[in-house]
Amino acid sequence: MSRNIKRNVKLEISYDGTNYHGFQTQPDRPTVQAELAKVLFELTGGNVRLAASGRTDAGVHARKQVVHFKLDEAIPIEKLPTVFNRLLPADIRVTAASEVGKEFHSRYDAVMKTYRYYIYNARISDVFMRQYSWHVPFAIDVVAMQQAAQYFKGTHDFTSFSTLYGKDDRVRTITHSEIWREGDRVIFEIRGSGFLHNMVRIMIGTLVRVGDGTFLPEEIGIIIEKQDRREAGPTAPASGLFLWDVEY
Amino acid sequence: MSRNIKRNVKLEISYDGTNYHGFQTQPDRPTVQAELAKVLFELTGGNVRLAASGRTDAGVHARKQVVHFKLDEAIPIEKLPTVFNRLLPADIRVTAASEVGKEFHSRYDAVMKTYRYYIYNARISDVFMRQYSWHVPFAIDVVAMQQAAQYFKGTHDFTSFSTLYGKDDRVRTITHSEIWREGDRVIFEIRGSGFLHNMVRIMIGTLVRVGDGTFLPEEIGIIIEKQDRREAGPTAPASGLFLWDVEY
Repeated sequence: MSRNIKRNVKLEISYDGTNYHGFQTQPDRPTVQAELAKVLFELTGGNVRLAASGRTDAGVHARKQVVHFKLDEAIPIEKLPTVFNRLLPADIRVTAASEVGKEFHSRYDAVMKTYRYYIYNARISDVFMRQYSWHVPFAIDVVAMQQAAQYFKGTHDFTSFSTLYGKDDRVRTITHSEIWREGDRVIFEIRGSGFLHNMVRIMIGTLVRVGDGTFLPEEIGIIIEKQDRREAGPTAPASGLFLWDVEY
Repeated sequence: MSRNIKRNVKLEISYDGTNYHGFQTQPDRPTVQAELAKVLFELTGGNVRLAASGRTDAGVHARKQVVHFKLDEAIPIEKLPTVFNRLLPADIRVTAASEVGKEFHSRYDAVMKTYRYYIYNARISDVFMRQYSWHVPFAIDVVAMQQAAQYFKGTHDFTSFSTLYGKDDRVRTITHSEIWREGDRVIFEIRGSGFLHNMVRIMIGTLVRVGDGTFLPEEIGIIIEKQDRREAGPTAPASGLFLWDVEY
């Protein structure tokens, strides 16, 4: 059976961002997109245009990222994870593959994204968590942080929680924002229709300032209203951030 | 208060073995011991003799390893973790320090050691576990493996489960040997008075051969009796092995 029409392929991928300068291809720097493009070049002998649900910054991880591309090679879809994983470095894995409608776009069709941020909260850092968390060595009040995290819910202009550039609309809708402790780990999970650049990292940097008593929980609402990046806390390290899920 | 008598110092340390050629100093290769010796040289201006509860091989991790050395510098014991951790690479941490009796020896006085071995058992490997587990992609019967693991308990000659060299006594006593599943992870925990070279890695390599049906659980008893390394399964990768605890 010959195939004259390119299939539209959706891949779910997972990566450890530690050794990459983010998702998006950059000249002379290792990126996740460049590794995927190399595999597609090996499979097709040509450059294949590849899009993702969104970029992730240097050092940020993905439990589940979604990419798509057009492919006319007659490789059965169910073989694609094995084929890719044989050629990819061990810190990037294809976890699922499917053929999708030709109009499907991994970025424009994403309706919800979930991020998780992991804090390791103990006096001495954990060697096995060091690349997958932010080490916060002082006591933090997670109950106050959970109260504060509720202020992120709803539709707001999140200028205070973004690295400023351009004049794009900064209104986003957050549907879920929870933070809890599991032993020495403090986990922040946030879900919404879209996120600004550095938004989750500034949110958690600000929540830690609630946890250490610098801010009161209710001040988060005021910081949002001010629409000024300088009102919020610092940008937390990339190592603790995981793109957790993308929904279509 | 001056100190003329050197204190005997015991440190508990934790390390990610991924980037080390094992614990013990080797010429021109990064080792955990060499990193600790460098710190002691910085603190004292001299070479300090340092011993551990035992070696770990290249790539093997330690949740808790114990070392000791003599120190006459007037650094308060409770400051030692902070002082060491400022100078050590991030993949080695000192988690506790105490002054011990001058006869204490980290190796000779160890009465029990516990190891854990982590298998990641799913078709596709997990990028975040890749350096901390052995990826076994096929189905394994953990109930059969648990039956098999019971044969390790007791006092036996473990020649079949060791990499052979020398004529040392190979009789060891195992007091605890359990294997269980937690989601996609299969965890083997073994505790005993001492372990031979590669013993835990050969044990788990053999247990996986029970899990895939190559061996019956009761054959473990026969393999022990044969006292022949060729009867057991393969040596499992270093990445899944953790020195978990040392008791005195």
